[in-house]
Amino acid sequence: MQIEIVTIGNEVLSGRTLDTNAAFLARALEEVSVQVMWHTTVGDHVGSISEALRLALDRADGVVVTGGLGPTPDDMTRKAVATVFKRPLQLDESVLASLRERGRRLGRKLPPSIETQALIPRGAEIWVNPVGSAPGLLIEQKKKPVILLPGVPQEMEALTRQFVVPYLRQRSGRFVESFTLRTAGVYESMLHDVIGELPSKWPGGSLAYLPSYFGVDLRVTVAGGSEDDVHTVTGMAYEQLRQRVAGVTYGEGTAGIEEVVGEQLLARGWRIAVAESCTGGLLMKRLTDVPGSSRYVERGFVVYSNAAKTAQVGVDPALIEAHGAVSAPVAEALARGARAAAGVEVGVGITGIAGPDGGSDTKPVGTVFIAVSTPETEVVRDHRFFGSRNVVRERGAQTAFDLVRRVIAGLPPDPKLG
Amino acid sequence: MQIEIVTIGNEVLSGRTLDTNAAFLARALEEVSVQVMWHTTVGDHVGSISEALRLALDRADGVVVTGGLGPTPDDMTRKAVATVFKRPLQLDESVLASLRERGRRLGRKLPPSIETQALIPRGAEIWVNPVGSAPGLLIEQKKKPVILLPGVPQEMEALTRQFVVPYLRQRSGRFVESFTLRTAGVYESMLHDVIGELPSKWPGGSLAYLPSYFGVDLRVTVAGGSEDDVHTVTGMAYEQLRQRVAGVTYGEGTAGIEEVVGEQLLARGWRIAVAESCTGGLLMKRLTDVPGSSRYVERGFVVYSNAAKTAQVGVDPALIEAHGAVSAPVAEALARGARAAAGVEVGVGITGIAGPDGGSDTKPVGTVFIAVSTPETEVVRDHRFFGSRNVVRERGAQTAFDLVRRVIAGLPPDPKLG
Repeated sequence: MQIEIVTIGNEVLSGRTLDTNAAFLARALEEVSVQVMWHTTVGDHVGSISEALRLALDRADGVVVTGGLGPTPDDMTRKAVATVFKRPLQLDESVLASLRERGRRLGRKLPPSIETQALIPRGAEIWVNPVGSAPGLLIEQKKKPVILLPGVPQEMEALTRQFVVPYLRQRSGRFVESFTLRTAGVYESMLHDVIGELPSKWPGGSLAYLPSYFGVDLRVTVAGGSEDDVHTVTGMAYEQLRQRVAGVTYGEGTAGIEEVVGEQLLARGWRIAVAESCTGGLLMKRLTDVPGSSRYVERGFVVYSNAAKTAQVGVDPALIEAHGAVSAPVAEALARGARAAAGVEVGVGITGIAGPDGGSDTKPVGTVFIAVSTPETEVVRDHRFFGSRNVVRERGAQTAFDLVRRVIAGLPPDPKLG
Repeated sequence: MQIEIVTIGNEVLSGRTLDTNAAFLARALEEVSVQVMWHTTVGDHVGSISEALRLALDRADGVVVTGGLGPTPDDMTRKAVATVFKRPLQLDESVLASLRERGRRLGRKLPPSIETQALIPRGAEIWVNPVGSAPGLLIEQKKKPVILLPGVPQEMEALTRQFVVPYLRQRSGRFVESFTLRTAGVYESMLHDVIGELPSKWPGGSLAYLPSYFGVDLRVTVAGGSEDDVHTVTGMAYEQLRQRVAGVTYGEGTAGIEEVVGEQLLARGWRIAVAESCTGGLLMKRLTDVPGSSRYVERGFVVYSNAAKTAQVGVDPALIEAHGAVSAPVAEALARGARAAAGVEVGVGITGIAGPDGGSDTKPVGTVFIAVSTPETEVVRDHRFFGSRNVVRERGAQTAFDLVRRVIAGLPPDPKLG
């Protein structure tokens, strides 16, 4: 089944808002073996919307529209649908009642325009919005589904998960399973070298390499007409792929490496403290992004100046003098000092040159030293990251988390494939 | 002039890569009064690309295409252009020579496929890529410009700035000036109340309200046929708008509030230290995002636990006991303690409940106390932010920077309009 996504909204067309909705939809539909073949964006203008709808229905097996369903005069999707598909808008009393009920519950005064959102194209199936007011709508036109969703990402995502995906799964008659292995510390080409043509042995299966600053995600999707077969192939693919990349895999699904580290800490009953220089707070920011992280995050030291390194975690000024602030001995002293000063089990130290200035021949921009200290061991590693200041900092943080993960798990400190 | 953007690439269509190119282009073209009316995305498939090109040329005054110009077999744009516009591909010796020269300079072995990138549709004007290999191409078809750009964002952006914008500016014969005022601490509707219909008095001018977690940006664009008139109107608009929103404007253009604060600190010869609890490193991370921030960032304390608040910046445990860790007195003690412990001029303290758990009736999730301490004054404010953990943290950090900015500048601590 090949579908077209139509995004409606001046704010998207003008580049002021990034179209994350289309990307979310495409990934969600892939899960049910529905392929996005076209994606069109038009502004809040009945003429353009109508033309886009006509064209999409013509060339695709189905259409998913986001945006333009709000109550304000610039929300034009309803009007365009009514015109193009000859389905006059009718006031739906049940939708109106639920909009009023929602308003009462939230203690909001309802504007007269609220009725607009209860105007439904004739014959549309109504999907109640679990997190907002505008419902999702399903219309069957020329035996093809036309799905209308609000543009607010949170609402669009909730409706997609609750209605769109199950509906299209049933309609396509296809079964799909997927999983993701998350790797860090290796390039896409290195993974490709050990994985090779393995995916060709998975009937109905495919593998996508998804690289980012944080590493390469390996996403496997298996599709087929038999639920049992799909399940068997997925299990086989998981075992085979996992075996080849176990040495560099930090997690599965969508969990970030800071969550993986958090779970390890909880399991060991350990707490963590960080002394960071070049990342300037980024490591602590990511650790505390995780709800409940106060159970294992004790404190952090952003030791930006040399004086701070000495005052906050007791780095010997002679050590900085002898090796420089960006050096393996100072990284070790930061890790050890963070651990001691906070009285916790895991200490992390990171020091480097994020750029754009400050590099030298022996320590160019991108040089980063990372150390981890625990009751069991101490490890320090040096790295050279390429890219902007932001990229060096992000890669440094990710690599630091991977080293923490390896040390806590008792794994070899360096990523190794095969 | 109304144009269509065509994005080519499976990775964008499948939702694995966000289409930041289209957004960048739309904003860049707005600067020269060129309006994006349609945006279409298709995969790496000659049939779809050809159809999209035909349609775009038909309905728009010009077409800008990104992606599919690389050397690999799945880069199909050249082939589609050659077919649809009947412009056979010809090997361009000067492009080939510059590709080889570039390879030599970077010490890379050139694959045989490099020649693909030197294949140019007959009659195309060549725009040399300042940061990559694939050149930009300009074709005149049915008297309309068709512009082909590589999909790598960095290369697309460089070519857009160097060639596309000047070319379209000249072609449109329109002059455009614009400016942006960045505000914090007030909602869009509050700004609208004081600005009202002011923009209707600017001939050829328009005002866009661009809200985000960080505040509302006010972007004014003035377009017209006379450079002098446009310049005069822009100056008038700037004075009038600035006057109405001066009390909440932290900066102009694209600089973030952490950069504005950095400049203030440099101007005063002051340094800053932060003790942060709920933001968990985010304030320091943002301060140190700025290149050269080591000139004024001394150190940071991520005082996540109560013990850390006492050990790192000397908050009296009795104060925490009496008022709770999330309270105005503790925020003040954090700011004062950060300043004293680091021996700097500006201390910032922030403590709050980021959620999703930990709220109570008197201190619900989103409650945040922010304090600033300087040699001249001490200020503390309490806030209630709505949204996810991430939103509460981001809004908290932005609001803290705005308080720092006001305190250093000697302004009233609270945003005030009108």
